Amino acid sequence: MTNTESVRIGVWFVGARGSVATTAMMGAAAARDGNATTVGCVTEGPDFQGAELPSLGNLVFGGHDICETPLPKRAEQLAHAGVAPARLPELVRADLAAADAEVLPGTPVFDADRSQREITTLLARDLRSFRERHELSRVVVVNVSSTEPRPSPRPEHERLEELERALDDSEPGREILPPSSLYAYTALRAGCPYVDFTPSLGARVPALDELARQQRVPYAGSDGKTGETLVKSALLPMFAARRLHVLSWSGTNLLGGGDGHTLSTPENVTSKTSSKQRALGESLGHPVDGDVHIDYVAELGEHKTAWDHVLFEGFLGARMSLQFTWQGCDSALAAPLVLDLARLLARAHETGHAGALPDLAFFFKDPVGVDEHRLEAQYEMLRRFAESLGEAR
Amino acid sequence: MTNTESVRIGVWFVGARGSVATTAMMGAAAARDGNATTVGCVTEGPDFQGAELPSLGNLVFGGHDICETPLPKRAEQLAHAGVAPARLPELVRADLAAADAEVLPGTPVFDADRSQREITTLLARDLRSFRERHELSRVVVVNVSSTEPRPSPRPEHERLEELERALDDSEPGREILPPSSLYAYTALRAGCPYVDFTPSLGARVPALDELARQQRVPYAGSDGKTGETLVKSALLPMFAARRLHVLSWSGTNLLGGGDGHTLSTPENVTSKTSSKQRALGESLGHPVDGDVHIDYVAELGEHKTAWDHVLFEGFLGARMSLQFTWQGCDSALAAPLVLDLARLLARAHETGHAGALPDLAFFFKDPVGVDEHRLEAQYEMLRRFAESLGEAR
Amino acid sequence: MTNTESVRIGVWFVGARGSVATTAMMGAAAARDGNATTVGCVTEGPDFQGAELPSLGNLVFGGHDICETPLPKRAEQLAHAGVAPARLPELVRADLAAADAEVLPGTPVFDADRSQREITTLLARDLRSFRERHELSRVVVVNVSSTEPRPSPRPEHERLEELERALDDSEPGREILPPSSLYAYTALRAGCPYVDFTPSLGARVPALDELARQQRVPYAGSDGKTGETLVKSALLPMFAARRLHVLSWSGTNLLGGGDGHTLSTPENVTSKTSSKQRALGESLGHPVDGDVHIDYVAELGEHKTAWDHVLFEGFLGARMSLQFTWQGCDSALAAPLVLDLARLLARAHETGHAGALPDLAFFFKDPVGVDEHRLEAQYEMLRRFAESLGEAR
Amino acid sequence: MTNTESVRIGVWFVGARGSVATTAMMGAAAARDGNATTVGCVTEGPDFQGAELPSLGNLVFGGHDICETPLPKRAEQLAHAGVAPARLPELVRADLAAADAEVLPGTPVFDADRSQREITTLLARDLRSFRERHELSRVVVVNVSSTEPRPSPRPEHERLEELERALDDSEPGREILPPSSLYAYTALRAGCPYVDFTPSLGARVPALDELARQQRVPYAGSDGKTGETLVKSALLPMFAARRLHVLSWSGTNLLGGGDGHTLSTPENVTSKTSSKQRALGESLGHPVDGDVHIDYVAELGEHKTAWDHVLFEGFLGARMSLQFTWQGCDSALAAPLVLDLARLLARAHETGHAGALPDLAFFFKDPVGVDEHRLEAQYEMLRRFAESLGEAR
Repeated sequence: MTNTESVRIGVWFVGARGSVATTAMMGAAAARDGNATTVGCVTEGPDFQGAELPSLGNLVFGGHDICETPLPKRAEQLAHAGVAPARLPELVRADLAAADAEVLPGTPVFDADRSQREITTLLARDLRSFRERHELSRVVVVNVSSTEPRPSPRPEHERLEELERALDDSEPGREILPPSSLYAYTALRAGCPYVDFTPSLGARVPALDELARQQRVPYAGSDGKTGETLVKSALLPMFAARRLHVLSWSGTNLLGGGDGHTLSTPENVTSKTSSKQRALGESLGHPVDGDVHIDYVAELGEHKTAWDHVLFEGFLGARMSLQFTWQGCDSALAAPLVLDLARLLARAHETGHAGALPDLAFFFKDPVGVDEHRLEAQYEMLRRFAESLGEAR
Repeated sequence: MTNTESVRIGVWFVGARGSVATTAMMGAAAARDGNATTVGCVTEGPDFQGAELPSLGNLVFGGHDICETPLPKRAEQLAHAGVAPARLPELVRADLAAADAEVLPGTPVFDADRSQREITTLLARDLRSFRERHELSRVVVVNVSSTEPRPSPRPEHERLEELERALDDSEPGREILPPSSLYAYTALRAGCPYVDFTPSLGARVPALDELARQQRVPYAGSDGKTGETLVKSALLPMFAARRLHVLSWSGTNLLGGGDGHTLSTPENVTSKTSSKQRALGESLGHPVDGDVHIDYVAELGEHKTAWDHVLFEGFLGARMSLQFTWQGCDSALAAPLVLDLARLLARAHETGHAGALPDLAFFFKDPVGVDEHRLEAQYEMLRRFAESLGEAR
Repeated sequence: MTNTESVRIGVWFVGARGSVATTAMMGAAAARDGNATTVGCVTEGPDFQGAELPSLGNLVFGGHDICETPLPKRAEQLAHAGVAPARLPELVRADLAAADAEVLPGTPVFDADRSQREITTLLARDLRSFRERHELSRVVVVNVSSTEPRPSPRPEHERLEELERALDDSEPGREILPPSSLYAYTALRAGCPYVDFTPSLGARVPALDELARQQRVPYAGSDGKTGETLVKSALLPMFAARRLHVLSWSGTNLLGGGDGHTLSTPENVTSKTSSKQRALGESLGHPVDGDVHIDYVAELGEHKTAWDHVLFEGFLGARMSLQFTWQGCDSALAAPLVLDLARLLARAHETGHAGALPDLAFFFKDPVGVDEHRLEAQYEMLRRFAESLGEAR
Repeated sequence: MTNTESVRIGVWFVGARGSVATTAMMGAAAARDGNATTVGCVTEGPDFQGAELPSLGNLVFGGHDICETPLPKRAEQLAHAGVAPARLPELVRADLAAADAEVLPGTPVFDADRSQREITTLLARDLRSFRERHELSRVVVVNVSSTEPRPSPRPEHERLEELERALDDSEPGREILPPSSLYAYTALRAGCPYVDFTPSLGARVPALDELARQQRVPYAGSDGKTGETLVKSALLPMFAARRLHVLSWSGTNLLGGGDGHTLSTPENVTSKTSSKQRALGESLGHPVDGDVHIDYVAELGEHKTAWDHVLFEGFLGARMSLQFTWQGCDSALAAPLVLDLARLLARAHETGHAGALPDLAFFFKDPVGVDEHRLEAQYEMLRRFAESLGEAR
């Protein structure tokens, strides 16, 4: 049996100085010291007590980011924006400073003077060095960086052998894989579990799935479910179970912060809204009218507001509607899930899981390897998965 | 094996000329003839195809009501109010006229010149006559009348023997049981399954539960879940599964029609809102702040609007909120459920079920015999129950 | 003094078989005969009783439309969609049939085989014929057709002399003026007051303004204010008067019907949303963040739903918000305003007004000739204008 | 001409350590020193620049309160709750400490061992002492304490002579006037202008109006308009001007903080909601269906949320609706208005106004002496009043 207390697990953030990663690190330190509760952490619930997950206190943080604002400073900004209590940054300053020392500039991934083969070698060296210096049992790589444009499919994405050859032949400035996927490649090749918390392509490439299975490494994704889609996935089964006929489902998302800015550019909106709409069509079994908008509203800061309007038909054709307004703080919703995923992936790796983990669909807008979009059914899958983790040796 | 097609089932409505009963009868006839779909009928879904339920076309309707507006006229009023297509009442006129001939004034239950023992004898005679004249296999009694004030508990409600004695000794004008419970008593004593679709006391009396088990008759209730509470029961598990801490849940219900008028009187509000709040407390496992209001807004007619505001706390204490507005047509939501319940109770009776049916919690705000308030979990219970009905001989 | 009762006024609709025109004609006939109230007709209020406006019963209707559904049939469709009581179409059938006989196919405006000079000559002949056959004092032309794409500015739009020369030289299939402006040209040239109820270019062309003043004919526009912008113009002064600082104003409009379909195409959205945003910037005196979306949701039919979210800052930087949801029936909101405008333009023409009528800003999203967007201030302008109409000889 | 810069004005708060008063004092100091803008202060707008109002920097604060938390501490609590920036309390600490030294326990008003005649004598001494020690030109008394139950009318409230006699004869523990009215009496008798910012009875007593006119002192009230009613008063004129027929107007107010607690007790709800409903009926000219609820939701803290639902009828009977949700911070909305009122009352007193000031209706839910409830019309009254203040010698 694993002694969960003595094992230290690395969590390597792609986007380590962003709001989500900073909030996650601040919260992990605060919860460990009793300065915060674990509200919002799914794996702290009773259904996960037997799963042998690493404790929050045993997580060691590092990562890449092109942003240069130190973590203690970012934490203060977040507290000022209402994401954390005013005094919390001070209480966890030492932890954040330590993590900050492990955040590398991360520029290689965008370095036009190097081939992608060279870049992955450099990234892998960073991961290895982090693991060795901290004597970590394993390192989970979590992508919480800005959403990137969805690239066109390429033939070398289909099979690992061809991907490796393409990377070997790659020239400086030529993109074989988008950055999120190059990170996924690096992580999986280095034996590190990988989590896609953004809608970027990441590990959702056949050749990378092949790599994960070959390396016996699990991965999970994609696109953390923290707002409109979360509520949708709770409400959709209601319409289905009651056999109420959904005629249209329209949504408007007002996002502040960096993510709002990135997502509202037309090329990115497509990747984000298509993942949102997918759940809808698959769950209801018939096409549904309606658009989803993502607007950047800078003044909302760390907050977001989603309004959805559902028009549906009942018995004898009666027209009815449901509207909801969700007003959330993105980092506060995402950060505990990121910690949950890091712990679950570490334990899944330890117990021999490899490839995509469809049982983690509960966390994602666009879950890999599964068509289940009903929240309760997803939770039940997760609960059983946690049970099986506990039963594994 | 039962030949479901040849068996005719009676559905006896308490409140047979109200909006819900009229819509149910209009819809059953329309669906049978292909003049309407069965949108909103839960038991028409694929999970119920093997349950051997009686078909909609095999239901025969009758009931009691103090209202004297004939059913064809009520149907026109409902179509005018947008509950049904304008031409539907004409298409089902013959069916409604036939049902109307089976609607008796129903005044005995309020007759101050008779004892409740005499009254139950008269009501039972009506049920028996209905069953015999139509050669019905069985009759399901469904209470869809106006909500009645919640009576004070009485010692003779505790045991059947004492209740029978109290009824034997009852004098004209003295109430041993409120009307809904006297109907439940009559139905169960006559071997008829009973459904409480209102929040009235009905069968929720220990002595009546004893009677149901003694008579080998099932009953279900109470308080059909058709609006705010339906949405609540879909959203509550989301907060629980994500471990988001609900601080307050406030609701305002604007109801038109007769039910709005009845429910908004102070003494009735208590019974209705307390059943709404029960689900909340039990599901979240901690007390939650907030009030629920029921306002009568005559001009809303057959429609209702509910607004709910949920304040919750996430990671590191971030305050967030969810609001929803549900705009529904009460009869259109309730009528198909009433048909579902009649079919399920008939089949449950046929297969030997007796007493409270907790597996039907999916339909009710205040489900009898069970603490499960999560909609998806309730649906799963229902699905399995239907499966077992199909497997029974 | 004018005897308003004996004067018959023509109302010529561009788009005469659309929802708005049909509802206006149905309502005018119904109100005249006491079969409907005049709820929603601004000019039926006490402030307009002395303005010597023509009565609703003295309006004679005609128009152009490419749609071939007869008006009595369109009225039935509208009643079926809930825009009018079920029995009203029958009551006004004779009036609608009479109006329908005056609706011409209107195809000339899109006739690629004729020059625009020829087309305007044909259109003018229709107007003249309508006026003469019915012995009308005057004819008001009202554009309620679908929104057209906003054309690029052309040099010949600047001066009337050049516009006339360009029309003289025009060849078949070449567009000098977009259809709405060719109608405006035709109307003004024929001495008919003109109303732009859509956001199309219409009379908002310097050369047409010159024509209107030369011909001593008034015109008004543009873009009838019937929903989101109406509420905005009521709320904006609140923020201004209280000196609350609006940070962002976001809106989503879900539109059914033909207008939703037209407006949601990208090239039209631009003309519509830019007129919506104009009011905002001008009223607050500083740029405000936020997008406005127009989505076509076919199943909404004649109804529309708008959701707006306003983020604002108060004393000491406190962040607050206001959201509203407006659920309206477009034709029911627009039709009485169209009748108001026809009556006001007729009387304005009679009393010698020429050119743009800025005092009618109350009716429009994008009022011509004025920067006032506060609803109450607009109403006060209108009230005084009506007063002046009453005082004119 | 008055030199506004050299004149110091006292502002005496009844409830000086409450959220509103604390925010007002913090904001006045911050704005004076350039540490905050004057967003939300109506009288800082251009329409008031010629009114010769005392500047914010010339206000001197004091008051009564039974609460003992010092103002600098209260300011920190408010900043923690998001009412003010985190660092502001430190910047204005000296000002708040100075004001705190002028806050007296204020217990006399509830002292059961003294007659109300004795109590008013003690209160008047405090006012006089404050004026003399600070060499103030005048002192404006502003009631921002908790709402008190509405007392039964008493005959001695009708005429000043009888009120004086009743106070002379009053015995310890016997209430002739409720506390708010005893404060109003004291202020007016001492020559101090008085503002009722709460719905309590205050100066709305015929005998006190007589006193105000006799003493040549102005007063204003009542019940500061900072949320639902503010939005209502902006929207109501829209329905009226468009002749849309309002069928029902329902509202639910969720209030945190002390005010929520006080207002939600049944006896107080009556006084608060009746003042809210009054505006509605008077503005529309016909009775309107619908209830208004005030719920205390402790966790909302300094914030409040109001949801309103308006059902209205348009042309040909079409049913439509408007809903809004207002999410505000009560103190941030109220505090700048309190400063506005203090400045306006001071100047009104200086220029010889006496008795009720109906021209200040813009600030109040239940404006004294006037039936105008349209926000824009109220603003116009206020603007002209300010103009007249500037023209007075």
